[in-house]
Amino acid sequence: MSRVLKHTAKRSEKIGLPPGTPVYLGRKKGETTRACITVMEYDGELFSEREVASAADLLPLKPAPTVTWINVDGVHDEGVLAEFGETFHLHPLMLEDILNTDQRPKCEFVENMIYVILKMFDFDAAREEIITEQVSLVLGPNLLITFQEEVGDELEAIRVRLRNNGTRLRKEGADYLAYTLLDVIVDRYFLVLEKMGESLEEIELGLASQTSSNTLGRIHHIKREMIFLRKYVWPVREVVGSLQRSDTELLQPRTITYLRDVYDHTIQVMDTLETYRDLLGGIQDLYLSILSNRMNEIMKVLTVISTIFIPLTFIVGVYGMNFKYMPELDSPWGYPLTWLVMIAVAGSMVVYFRRKNWF
Amino acid sequence: MSRVLKHTAKRSEKIGLPPGTPVYLGRKKGETTRACITVMEYDGELFSEREVASAADLLPLKPAPTVTWINVDGVHDEGVLAEFGETFHLHPLMLEDILNTDQRPKCEFVENMIYVILKMFDFDAAREEIITEQVSLVLGPNLLITFQEEVGDELEAIRVRLRNNGTRLRKEGADYLAYTLLDVIVDRYFLVLEKMGESLEEIELGLASQTSSNTLGRIHHIKREMIFLRKYVWPVREVVGSLQRSDTELLQPRTITYLRDVYDHTIQVMDTLETYRDLLGGIQDLYLSILSNRMNEIMKVLTVISTIFIPLTFIVGVYGMNFKYMPELDSPWGYPLTWLVMIAVAGSMVVYFRRKNWF
Amino acid sequence: MSRVLKHTAKRSEKIGLPPGTPVYLGRKKGETTRACITVMEYDGELFSEREVASAADLLPLKPAPTVTWINVDGVHDEGVLAEFGETFHLHPLMLEDILNTDQRPKCEFVENMIYVILKMFDFDAAREEIITEQVSLVLGPNLLITFQEEVGDELEAIRVRLRNNGTRLRKEGADYLAYTLLDVIVDRYFLVLEKMGESLEEIELGLASQTSSNTLGRIHHIKREMIFLRKYVWPVREVVGSLQRSDTELLQPRTITYLRDVYDHTIQVMDTLETYRDLLGGIQDLYLSILSNRMNEIMKVLTVISTIFIPLTFIVGVYGMNFKYMPELDSPWGYPLTWLVMIAVAGSMVVYFRRKNWF
Amino acid sequence: MSRVLKHTAKRSEKIGLPPGTPVYLGRKKGETTRACITVMEYDGELFSEREVASAADLLPLKPAPTVTWINVDGVHDEGVLAEFGETFHLHPLMLEDILNTDQRPKCEFVENMIYVILKMFDFDAAREEIITEQVSLVLGPNLLITFQEEVGDELEAIRVRLRNNGTRLRKEGADYLAYTLLDVIVDRYFLVLEKMGESLEEIELGLASQTSSNTLGRIHHIKREMIFLRKYVWPVREVVGSLQRSDTELLQPRTITYLRDVYDHTIQVMDTLETYRDLLGGIQDLYLSILSNRMNEIMKVLTVISTIFIPLTFIVGVYGMNFKYMPELDSPWGYPLTWLVMIAVAGSMVVYFRRKNWF
Amino acid sequence: MSRVLKHTAKRSEKIGLPPGTPVYLGRKKGETTRACITVMEYDGELFSEREVASAADLLPLKPAPTVTWINVDGVHDEGVLAEFGETFHLHPLMLEDILNTDQRPKCEFVENMIYVILKMFDFDAAREEIITEQVSLVLGPNLLITFQEEVGDELEAIRVRLRNNGTRLRKEGADYLAYTLLDVIVDRYFLVLEKMGESLEEIELGLASQTSSNTLGRIHHIKREMIFLRKYVWPVREVVGSLQRSDTELLQPRTITYLRDVYDHTIQVMDTLETYRDLLGGIQDLYLSILSNRMNEIMKVLTVISTIFIPLTFIVGVYGMNFKYMPELDSPWGYPLTWLVMIAVAGSMVVYFRRKNWF
Repeated sequence: MSRVLKHTAKRSEKIGLPPGTPVYLGRKKGETTRACITVMEYDGELFSEREVASAADLLPLKPAPTVTWINVDGVHDEGVLAEFGETFHLHPLMLEDILNTDQRPKCEFVENMIYVILKMFDFDAAREEIITEQVSLVLGPNLLITFQEEVGDELEAIRVRLRNNGTRLRKEGADYLAYTLLDVIVDRYFLVLEKMGESLEEIELGLASQTSSNTLGRIHHIKREMIFLRKYVWPVREVVGSLQRSDTELLQPRTITYLRDVYDHTIQVMDTLETYRDLLGGIQDLYLSILSNRMNEIMKVLTVISTIFIPLTFIVGVYGMNFKYMPELDSPWGYPLTWLVMIAVAGSMVVYFRRKNWF
Repeated sequence: MSRVLKHTAKRSEKIGLPPGTPVYLGRKKGETTRACITVMEYDGELFSEREVASAADLLPLKPAPTVTWINVDGVHDEGVLAEFGETFHLHPLMLEDILNTDQRPKCEFVENMIYVILKMFDFDAAREEIITEQVSLVLGPNLLITFQEEVGDELEAIRVRLRNNGTRLRKEGADYLAYTLLDVIVDRYFLVLEKMGESLEEIELGLASQTSSNTLGRIHHIKREMIFLRKYVWPVREVVGSLQRSDTELLQPRTITYLRDVYDHTIQVMDTLETYRDLLGGIQDLYLSILSNRMNEIMKVLTVISTIFIPLTFIVGVYGMNFKYMPELDSPWGYPLTWLVMIAVAGSMVVYFRRKNWF
Repeated sequence: MSRVLKHTAKRSEKIGLPPGTPVYLGRKKGETTRACITVMEYDGELFSEREVASAADLLPLKPAPTVTWINVDGVHDEGVLAEFGETFHLHPLMLEDILNTDQRPKCEFVENMIYVILKMFDFDAAREEIITEQVSLVLGPNLLITFQEEVGDELEAIRVRLRNNGTRLRKEGADYLAYTLLDVIVDRYFLVLEKMGESLEEIELGLASQTSSNTLGRIHHIKREMIFLRKYVWPVREVVGSLQRSDTELLQPRTITYLRDVYDHTIQVMDTLETYRDLLGGIQDLYLSILSNRMNEIMKVLTVISTIFIPLTFIVGVYGMNFKYMPELDSPWGYPLTWLVMIAVAGSMVVYFRRKNWF
Repeated sequence: MSRVLKHTAKRSEKIGLPPGTPVYLGRKKGETTRACITVMEYDGELFSEREVASAADLLPLKPAPTVTWINVDGVHDEGVLAEFGETFHLHPLMLEDILNTDQRPKCEFVENMIYVILKMFDFDAAREEIITEQVSLVLGPNLLITFQEEVGDELEAIRVRLRNNGTRLRKEGADYLAYTLLDVIVDRYFLVLEKMGESLEEIELGLASQTSSNTLGRIHHIKREMIFLRKYVWPVREVVGSLQRSDTELLQPRTITYLRDVYDHTIQVMDTLETYRDLLGGIQDLYLSILSNRMNEIMKVLTVISTIFIPLTFIVGVYGMNFKYMPELDSPWGYPLTWLVMIAVAGSMVVYFRRKNWF
Repeated sequence: MSRVLKHTAKRSEKIGLPPGTPVYLGRKKGETTRACITVMEYDGELFSEREVASAADLLPLKPAPTVTWINVDGVHDEGVLAEFGETFHLHPLMLEDILNTDQRPKCEFVENMIYVILKMFDFDAAREEIITEQVSLVLGPNLLITFQEEVGDELEAIRVRLRNNGTRLRKEGADYLAYTLLDVIVDRYFLVLEKMGESLEEIELGLASQTSSNTLGRIHHIKREMIFLRKYVWPVREVVGSLQRSDTELLQPRTITYLRDVYDHTIQVMDTLETYRDLLGGIQDLYLSILSNRMNEIMKVLTVISTIFIPLTFIVGVYGMNFKYMPELDSPWGYPLTWLVMIAVAGSMVVYFRRKNWF
């Protein structure tokens, strides 16, 4: 199914269901795939990493300062999600949003937890398409739960830093871990922008050399990708902004300072997107002008050739007539004079077009 | 009558009438159809459902915690509406708005009642048109009155949930019922969006294969539908927003939390509409470029054929002349040489056009 | 003079004059026409209606609760206006604005009076043009003065309601009368919108059947009318909004509730205008696409005919040459073979164009 | 030098100079022209008018209630400006702005003075160009200093009113004089708007009759003038607005009431400019559609003529061939039958084009 | 690498690195180039200027009122930057931003320092391209550190003024020096605007004379430059605005007054950019209209020539037929009458086209 429908297709299935009914709206997987739950527990000194089968195995959490990061890959598994909802007292509406992979990025402060839902982007080089994946963060005291749509290693860099003893990440709390995740996710946006920038470059360079109808398709394709990127990046600004302005105890003042940096990055992403949008508009205008120009060129060729030869063809037609009494035909000067006239006509046409700068 | 006029045609009939005169402005029905009034009374344990003939039969309402939901199908029946106005002390201006089926979605807090007027959308697959129906909600203490334009079963899912003992809906008050209605109505918007998304897909796929003038019509048609959808969805945001911010006792804090969810959904509907708008703009640009490109192709064919054959036709014309003294005609090499010249001319033309990349 | 100039042409005459100099800037009438002053005095029980010659005849006003409504038809009569200014202590800048019939709709609270300047619209069906007329309302305690540009019966419906004993209008004060006038004026806007909607319909339906250059003219014409309508309707929102927010004693709380209704109507007018604007934009795009499409059709016909016959004409030209030694000419199969070749050429062209879907 | 550069060309000369260095950036005059300083001193009874050579001659100012209005024509004279700076303690940054004739309109409250910098417009009918002149007002207690770029009589009307004993202007303070100047300057904007309106009219009327490439030039020219007008009128709104909101003692409450009138006028100027912009956009669209339509007409003529005659020419070519064995040639019916066939072909073409509504 | 990528290309290298890791993202230089550090220490009387090798050599700073200005040319040298971070306790996130030469202009108040990051523009006349260079200012008590990307003399004018005893710059504090730098940087923007204005002029003048496809390229090129300029100038407004509104002790009230001037300049730059944008849009429209017009001209020539000669060629073709029985051929009036008919046909065509105003 195509991108346009991908994000809205199954919402209608939920009409009339009670609010807070958790229904997974994303791409369906094979039935057998179960969500994969991994846990990392760490503080400045200790570190443990393991995989568990169900949410119940996670309790009780170790007391502070040990931070627990639970990562759930595969939100399509509604059963596991329901378990998490019960075990960690997640709000049913939030659970619904986490499952609904068409969710607009948002940030909610419910009870003593912060829910952040974001999009992570990847770039499929083969199909030149952006792949979106929804990432949900639930930040509690001393605890971070993350939900991803698919098993992937986008966040592996963070895990590596956690495993290394002595990194700053190990010494800070769960809020700093959440910030680091946000930072990585927003930084990935630049990756997609770079790919887009490269495509823009290619299109622009290609304009001069040839104008296959392919150009049109690529301009349209990249415009579509930009529209979707924009749709999901725009609300991220609000999300990070409301995190910054919040006065919750879950976020330490130092982390909020760092969040300002993420905020700046999202603004820069938006700026760049706007710039690309303008550039693409310019490229499209240029392309259309080139088309018009080319049309003019074609018409000029046709017109020059036609207007030179049509009168000549008429002249030769005249002396191809079979009238009995045509005095010119009998004159020995008829033929050479006709040539002279024709050369004169053609010559004056050429001069006329030259003056009009047509060739 | 067409859509453009449907919504404004009869407003002018009211000029000069005193304000608050309830006049039905919607599609006129057969005179004999009377509004259909159904009542549901329920609390956690009890439940009754019946149909009544007039507003007066509804009094007295059962005391709390029993919730009374009165649904009126058919607001064209001005008499019944007037009865309701008297019986439940509805504000005359609000009654007028309920009857005026061209009303902009709005929300008013008058005395101890909340009036909400919304549009419900349906999609007529046959004519590919959005069908709008106005739904008005009057929320009083322990009481919800809903007015619909036509008898329909869009809200049947809610009735089913009410009939089932033990659902959350049965345990909560009238405000939660109103929220559930809002939620269902806004969720239906996604249905229309999906249909639009499908149409966009079809148009986009059709662009490549053929460009019948039909494409134009469909693009224009879907644009029109989007303009109207936008007109009625945009104010819904304000409506839900002002419900959320209100400090009336009619809405419990918990319900307001749920309303935030509806608010998010309306924003998502608007976002998607904007995205579709941008996409449609892109498709239109692409279509026009394809038209231009096709024109160029046509012109190239014409030009190539013409410019190759016009000079040749001139040459054969020359030797079709009947001059007595044309030495070439008598030469045995005249004819084959003429062919050679013509092949040379045609060949150089072909080389020229090849170099210009014209075919 | 045309509409573009109608509204700005004579402003320049006032440069350098002291502010507050009342100069009539509207369409000049014959000198003999004098402004027509009518007075209605009423309360719940009494009612009198008469015509007076000058402002001085109006004093003293009857005491409350009798409401006095003075209507002046013909603001071009600068003398009468000056009399009114003196008699009722109107502010000179406001008098200037009332006379300046190019005034932007506005609302001013000066001393114990409210000045409201609005545009009333009518539709000249013959010339398909909007006719604007400036209406100024001065609301004082127990008193309403209205100034119209021309004698007309747009407000006759209100007069009828006043003459009838027992209507609500008779029982309420001058502020309610002012509200009723505003309501009637804004409701008239819908009339113009309906006419525009009808024109849009006609244009849209006409697009498919034929595209005379007339379509262009009508699209342009209606766009112009919309631009002007928008110019004068937009500020009305502010006017009604500032009336609503004012805390003057001249407006009773109940009247302010009713004003909210007028406010909603102006927003609805603006919404509909915006929708029409978008629709018109869509129609124009569609029209241009149809033009392009038609051009393509024309070019296809030309190209198909030309490219089929030009090579054939070349072939017959070849055998029209008069060379002595052309073996084909002497062969009995020459003529039929030439026909075969020509049919083959034409046939392959037709197949080529069919495959390219050109006809 | 052209308008684009006129306003920015010499800014770069100042890079690196200390701020507050007064450098004249406007059009250079002959070196010998010295600024012309005129003084008017007046109160309700007294009035004197004289010309002085230098700023020092102006001190001491007469005490209140005598108002002193000093007008400096020719700000290019940097020496005189420096004198004024010293004599009246003008702020160096403000002096710099007064000299910089590319200054954006602005209003500053520095110490006990108000600095207002505005643009005055004139219309050069011959070259159809707007002429901008910068006017700076410095309002002190009992004192108004105005700086103009060139000697002109735009403000002569005000001087005349001042010379007349008994006008309101004579009785009021310096703030009222400043208001009067602002009023005259803003009223002059309407003059330029009228000229533009006339040009728009002419262009629009010209569209129907002929489409010389001149139309393009005029549309572009007027668009340019509008862009520049807009650039300098837009900030005037802020200027007047901040004067109104200021709580300085230099402006009396009554004057502020009058300023509201100027504010309304600037908004009306902006409204009219926006309207003209929209109108011009409409005219341009109409022009492009007319071009397209005309192209279609041309193509139709070419296509009709070509497609009728090309097949006929082929037919006559066929019987111009010189094959020995062409039975048709010997038949006595050959010639008339050929004519019949040709008439049939041409006739069916004509019918086809008629049905397609091509002529 | 091209401009599109220049600014975003290497961001992705940083994904997953801890925040505050200083990585230089700009154009890589040869490895051997080390950053060049120059120090100026001055007060009203003393002045010293020297070059140092490392940050440590700079301590201890001289006490107030001596102002220390440290300029670092070459931020690519990550080692030197790290030294500065340690020596002057710069915030790691700010250091990161200084190194990241794709940073959006911004202003941060961290602890007792103000960080300002701006773009400086230069114009490469040969390649007609804007060259951006990032300049970072760190303002501490009595101290200003500036970081530039490359060694350049853009700020030389300020150094000259510092070296001169007695200038105001020497007498004021570090905040005034920072203001002067801002002023010079913003004033340089006008330089780029002037160059752009000149290009706009040239393009506009060139439109009338000839329309090489070069015009398209230049319009597109300048549009691109404007998009980038806009991207980096727009946030400068915020930067200067937040400096003005700050209540830090680092900025003296007098300096804030001067900053208002810089603020006005940035607004003027934005205004001019907007104006240029509008102008460029107008030029592009004009160019496209000229293209369309030219196409019409070409088509007219083709159509006139074709429609005049095609019927004539048909006529001469008719009498080139070889039918035995063609009575016209034997008549002595055949030939001259044919000429008369042809002249009549051609003449009526000419009259027809003349009336249609085609030539």
